[in-house]
Amino acid sequence: MNKQELIQQIQHKRSFLCVGLDTEITKVPQHLLQTNDPIFEFNKQIIDATAPYTVAYKPNIAFYECYGIQGWQSLEKTVRYITQNYPDIFVIADAKRGDIGNTSKMYAQAFFENLPFHSVTVAPYMGEDSVTPFLSYEGKWVILLALTSNKGAFDFQCIESNGIPLYKQVITQSQRWGTTENMMYVVGATKANMLKDIRSVAPNHFLLVPGVGAQGGSLQEVAQYGMNAECGLLVNSSRAIIFADASEQFAAVAGIKAQEMQIEMEELLRKYSSLI
Amino acid sequence: MNKQELIQQIQHKRSFLCVGLDTEITKVPQHLLQTNDPIFEFNKQIIDATAPYTVAYKPNIAFYECYGIQGWQSLEKTVRYITQNYPDIFVIADAKRGDIGNTSKMYAQAFFENLPFHSVTVAPYMGEDSVTPFLSYEGKWVILLALTSNKGAFDFQCIESNGIPLYKQVITQSQRWGTTENMMYVVGATKANMLKDIRSVAPNHFLLVPGVGAQGGSLQEVAQYGMNAECGLLVNSSRAIIFADASEQFAAVAGIKAQEMQIEMEELLRKYSSLI
Repeated sequence: MNKQELIQQIQHKRSFLCVGLDTEITKVPQHLLQTNDPIFEFNKQIIDATAPYTVAYKPNIAFYECYGIQGWQSLEKTVRYITQNYPDIFVIADAKRGDIGNTSKMYAQAFFENLPFHSVTVAPYMGEDSVTPFLSYEGKWVILLALTSNKGAFDFQCIESNGIPLYKQVITQSQRWGTTENMMYVVGATKANMLKDIRSVAPNHFLLVPGVGAQGGSLQEVAQYGMNAECGLLVNSSRAIIFADASEQFAAVAGIKAQEMQIEMEELLRKYSSLI
Repeated sequence: MNKQELIQQIQHKRSFLCVGLDTEITKVPQHLLQTNDPIFEFNKQIIDATAPYTVAYKPNIAFYECYGIQGWQSLEKTVRYITQNYPDIFVIADAKRGDIGNTSKMYAQAFFENLPFHSVTVAPYMGEDSVTPFLSYEGKWVILLALTSNKGAFDFQCIESNGIPLYKQVITQSQRWGTTENMMYVVGATKANMLKDIRSVAPNHFLLVPGVGAQGGSLQEVAQYGMNAECGLLVNSSRAIIFADASEQFAAVAGIKAQEMQIEMEELLRKYSSLI
């Protein structure tokens, strides 16, 4: 999926919502546990209910990998269900992979060839050759970790060299490897005030922003400091949508929660972007 | 597996060899391609041939993940084969995972509960809460990326703050999270001359050293600068052993290559450690 297609979808749905499919079996409603593949069944119903308000889905791979082969089956069914039924929606493998060149190539193959993901989150620690293998696929994206939403983000990401924090060096240096057409950055919503500074070095890149909702980030602030004319944001919400209700109505409630975010996002798009 | 057990094995086998099971289907000998699971069949024969000279096996997860469910099956069979038949051998999931706390917990579950790995390589970029969930398992280890063996290692790992390179800050700061009993560091053999400096801040930790052999690092230099009285090294070789021969004799040749390294290692243990 190219940048223009993603922007068109944002414009059409008046939303920049990414729904995180971090599906924990212990939180799946009781009545689904008798089905063949409760995690896929849960995801399928969440997807159908939220798709009108959502421009991206982001399964976090850890939540599937922890169930081994069975988990990978649920993951594969989920991503194929999205791309077959909602081909306009951008699908992110939140995998945070990264290894030496010839190994990163295998990870790229895992998510871009063996599975039909549009993008993978990649960790920058190992540098250029750990990232570039993911960039050699037409229409596929790297979403590079810059400033994450967790407490530990401050341990290394903000270490300064010549007054420049590491996350900013990651953003500037990686712009030599990819373009605004195949690279995005992860910037946590819990650090929304730093978005203005990030926009000074990456004005046109899309930013994937986790940490809104359960993790405490503010959508209003993210849009105020991070949105550009083309929106340039995918804001992820996971638990606050998919686990909003644990009854048989879970999907309908998730749909309502997603719609509430879409309405808030429409207003922010009107205020800060030139899309609507 | 605890530190003492690992050291005993090194002493007993007079080896600190780790064999990297980075099994590419395109390099598996022709005659195995007709079997049900060529990758597992290849690994099994490599393991049986090299086990007398080897103290650790390290499947790189990317090489399995790239085949999806089938790859995870081969991986699971491989690690169970090792732990059942060679229970003394240390098994490393070279996964380079790392995510926010509640997600790293799922990765830890994947490798330590669902699969019987003894250790996982972890990327430090996301800081403390991305690492600690792996440390809460008795007898399991984190192997934290410090200074890797690839070209891109210089992009961020050597960035200096107050004269201290990032990889060294990773090593010093992470010593507050784990101990010499549950944490090791990845230090590439291609940077052997930096091992002396690393030993000044981590004298007693085990170091996992990739990059010997195909990647060009020198075993002699690694031992000279990196070995401590208890050895403190696991040196990985992958392609140079497992793909040394592509005929029906591949396993026997791999065994010979592993033995050659063991003999070299025995000499180095005699010279630089107090184990033999």
